[in-house]
Amino acid sequence: MLDERMSEQSVIGSDRVEGTSIYGTNGDKIGSVRRIMIDKITGEARDVEVSVGAFLGMGGELHSLPWEKLEYDTELGGYKLDVTEEQLRGAPTYGEADRDRQLDREYQTRVYSHWTVSPYW
Amino acid sequence: MLDERMSEQSVIGSDRVEGTSIYGTNGDKIGSVRRIMIDKITGEARDVEVSVGAFLGMGGELHSLPWEKLEYDTELGGYKLDVTEEQLRGAPTYGEADRDRQLDREYQTRVYSHWTVSPYW
Repeated sequence: MLDERMSEQSVIGSDRVEGTSIYGTNGDKIGSVRRIMIDKITGEARDVEVSVGAFLGMGGELHSLPWEKLEYDTELGGYKLDVTEEQLRGAPTYGEADRDRQLDREYQTRVYSHWTVSPYW
Repeated sequence: MLDERMSEQSVIGSDRVEGTSIYGTNGDKIGSVRRIMIDKITGEARDVEVSVGAFLGMGGELHSLPWEKLEYDTELGGYKLDVTEEQLRGAPTYGEADRDRQLDREYQTRVYSHWTVSPYW
């Protein structure tokens, strides 16, 4: 019943976004969502932190991706990227200890420039 | 340094929204955020689950509030409601075991009607 209701609509709790699958352009699963960065004032999603190559939730590399690089695919039940795993691995990355990079405008400027996306700020 | 960067901008991780303070119309703290319901497809915040009267994170009652009932107050570092604690306590509520009410359109219709907010769906 709950699953039925959930599939009917598209909202998800902030406490449930972690672990949502990320698929590459060819449909292969290449990682998962760690968190979504939300604008506290406007309520808009800005960036998604994607974990690639983690094993049992450990290790792997983290990437911050502009929200518009992801598209939710209802059939896959996850986000599809318009890039391959290889391209993602070539993008700016950081480790577990540097997760505040997502709040660092200098770093984010490099990320947006890498993906040729206009910054929202 | 991190705090400085964080105060400069308004993004927050989905893993950090829990516990954000909720203030009433008179500026008193009346509760805290449990989670934000996000549209997976558009990335927009839709509803906020607010916990009122909890002690050490236990007990208390939960309310689902349309996003537009909250306004982020940078000085307070939390969301301000345009209602009093009394009015909030008179609104539709549910317990810990019924958190999927936020995904229930019938329930949400009652909530939006109570707050005289037009449903987004």
